[in-house]
Amino acid sequence: MAAARHSTLDFMLGATADCNAVLKALQPVFQEQGMTETVHNWEDHGYLATYIKKNGSFANLRIHPHGLVLVDLQSYNDHTKGREETDQLLNKVEERMKELFHGNLKRIKRLPAILRGGVIDRYWPTADGRLVEYDIDEVVYDEDSPFQNIKILHSKQFGNILILSGDVNLAESDLAYTRAIMGSGKEDYTGKEVLILGGGDGGILYEIVKLKPKMVTMVLIEDCIPVLKRYAKEGRMFDYVINDLTAVPISTSPEEDSTWEFLRLILDLSMKVLKQDGKYFTQGNCINLTDALTLYEEQLSRLYCPVEFSKEIVCVPSYMELWVFYTIWKKQTEV
Amino acid sequence: MAAARHSTLDFMLGATADCNAVLKALQPVFQEQGMTETVHNWEDHGYLATYIKKNGSFANLRIHPHGLVLVDLQSYNDHTKGREETDQLLNKVEERMKELFHGNLKRIKRLPAILRGGVIDRYWPTADGRLVEYDIDEVVYDEDSPFQNIKILHSKQFGNILILSGDVNLAESDLAYTRAIMGSGKEDYTGKEVLILGGGDGGILYEIVKLKPKMVTMVLIEDCIPVLKRYAKEGRMFDYVINDLTAVPISTSPEEDSTWEFLRLILDLSMKVLKQDGKYFTQGNCINLTDALTLYEEQLSRLYCPVEFSKEIVCVPSYMELWVFYTIWKKQTEV
Repeated sequence: MAAARHSTLDFMLGATADCNAVLKALQPVFQEQGMTETVHNWEDHGYLATYIKKNGSFANLRIHPHGLVLVDLQSYNDHTKGREETDQLLNKVEERMKELFHGNLKRIKRLPAILRGGVIDRYWPTADGRLVEYDIDEVVYDEDSPFQNIKILHSKQFGNILILSGDVNLAESDLAYTRAIMGSGKEDYTGKEVLILGGGDGGILYEIVKLKPKMVTMVLIEDCIPVLKRYAKEGRMFDYVINDLTAVPISTSPEEDSTWEFLRLILDLSMKVLKQDGKYFTQGNCINLTDALTLYEEQLSRLYCPVEFSKEIVCVPSYMELWVFYTIWKKQTEV
Repeated sequence: MAAARHSTLDFMLGATADCNAVLKALQPVFQEQGMTETVHNWEDHGYLATYIKKNGSFANLRIHPHGLVLVDLQSYNDHTKGREETDQLLNKVEERMKELFHGNLKRIKRLPAILRGGVIDRYWPTADGRLVEYDIDEVVYDEDSPFQNIKILHSKQFGNILILSGDVNLAESDLAYTRAIMGSGKEDYTGKEVLILGGGDGGILYEIVKLKPKMVTMVLIEDCIPVLKRYAKEGRMFDYVINDLTAVPISTSPEEDSTWEFLRLILDLSMKVLKQDGKYFTQGNCINLTDALTLYEEQLSRLYCPVEFSKEIVCVPSYMELWVFYTIWKKQTEV
């Protein structure tokens, strides 16, 4: 299936625009390509010219009177020739604009073209909602489970990336994540009892067994709530609890209604199975979602037992944003 | 100056599209917003419907017969109400499409809106040409020097970012860069003679003086070629040469015509001032530009003296792509 290639070229002028002069200067560039024109004139909001080509591609020229000229071009992405034609057209528009304004343009911005409707989807926004394009070159796996959509996409630089319901979870490049959620190399796991909640990519288990723990228990494909409740009832205790569950719970029902209550339930149960001098590690959120981080920290003050925490900011390569990791421990009572 | 906000919403259908049915289903959504319609029918390439609103915003509905429906919406970004209206319109389009296809859509993709012509430019493509949006919230500095455009933009997570002629050079978050170009903590700088070429952000100098070198010489604002020539002539030798010049030379003239010849000249001169057991550190390129990396490595085999090299792949937070760093040393002759 042919994808569409969306190219943009923007001009910020130094002053207000003579909309008609800009239109007249650029019209021939499009018409030379055999494109037919339709012009809408808002009077007080400038012009929109639409140029249509026989091969199914089209362009928009939007001229804002306050001095902004935006060009959009949508064409098929199925042959190199089409891409060259697009580039040539945008080059000509840029030349003409430079001539018209004698090079006196405040900004000329041409973004990398956006591929729309391609078999490979390269756009996976960050947790803080920014647009980022990945160097995806292969869809390794793409299926809906009863719980979520599971994608494994291959990135040239990051290796395979696990994407759960559109959320970038982890890539092969991301040892920094695994290191951070294990305490950044500052812990001695020798002979210790470790509980991993989630950890489905296997990275934590792989790294931790190298460190000679006594036993690692991984609650991977089950609902961890009843398991934690059973451990708590049995009095089974751990030196380390590593919460590597999905950032957004698959479901909070039937236990709790809100995500925050649910997260607090897991925290409370985890504290119940954590030894008095044990440590609880978890990933928090991207550094820019300060409200979510604050809300999480508020939950920590509402657990059944008093806890203290520290946080670390880590660069996880495939995330393209800095990430906050938490270490939580039971507050030691004065002797 | 009001920036434009460009929103997109794409649908990949499971099969070919009945273009007319899609158009008829979506028309009312736009018309309810008081938008006037112009339709172009390519027959063999589907439809383009353009919807124009009195307030200067407009939408494109492009229906490709092979099963791709693309919606674009451009509006002013000057008030929250406008953003809400855009979101509501796109929500309605999405609802209507789900109704029409009974939820049987292969992919629905809504990218974060692109801000075009804003005072703050948030889009700084990677070295390998991918579109990435930064969390820029302030223009700290923006001036043209006789050599290049110099921008310092503030990122919420990366701190101040130095951008030279559109190329992201370094941010306050990027100690990983400085560490890597100093040999990743594996070198003993105590009592050593160090030459820094470039290094204008001061990071290398700041870190290296902590390590008690004998002397650090920084060739920062001069053309480094005559300086290196003079040192070579005087027989001045260094234990470490750290090349932290801009990735793309400001000018290769009058010395050499091509960038590669120029880079080789710097390498040759650096080797002349490097002690027999000294080390030369430099950044290479992003990991995806394999051709450029290969060309660079070819230059290394063409120096006046035989050299060996190793490389390391480093995640520099603000780059949003993995970066290759080189260590180069003179081949030791067998005794």
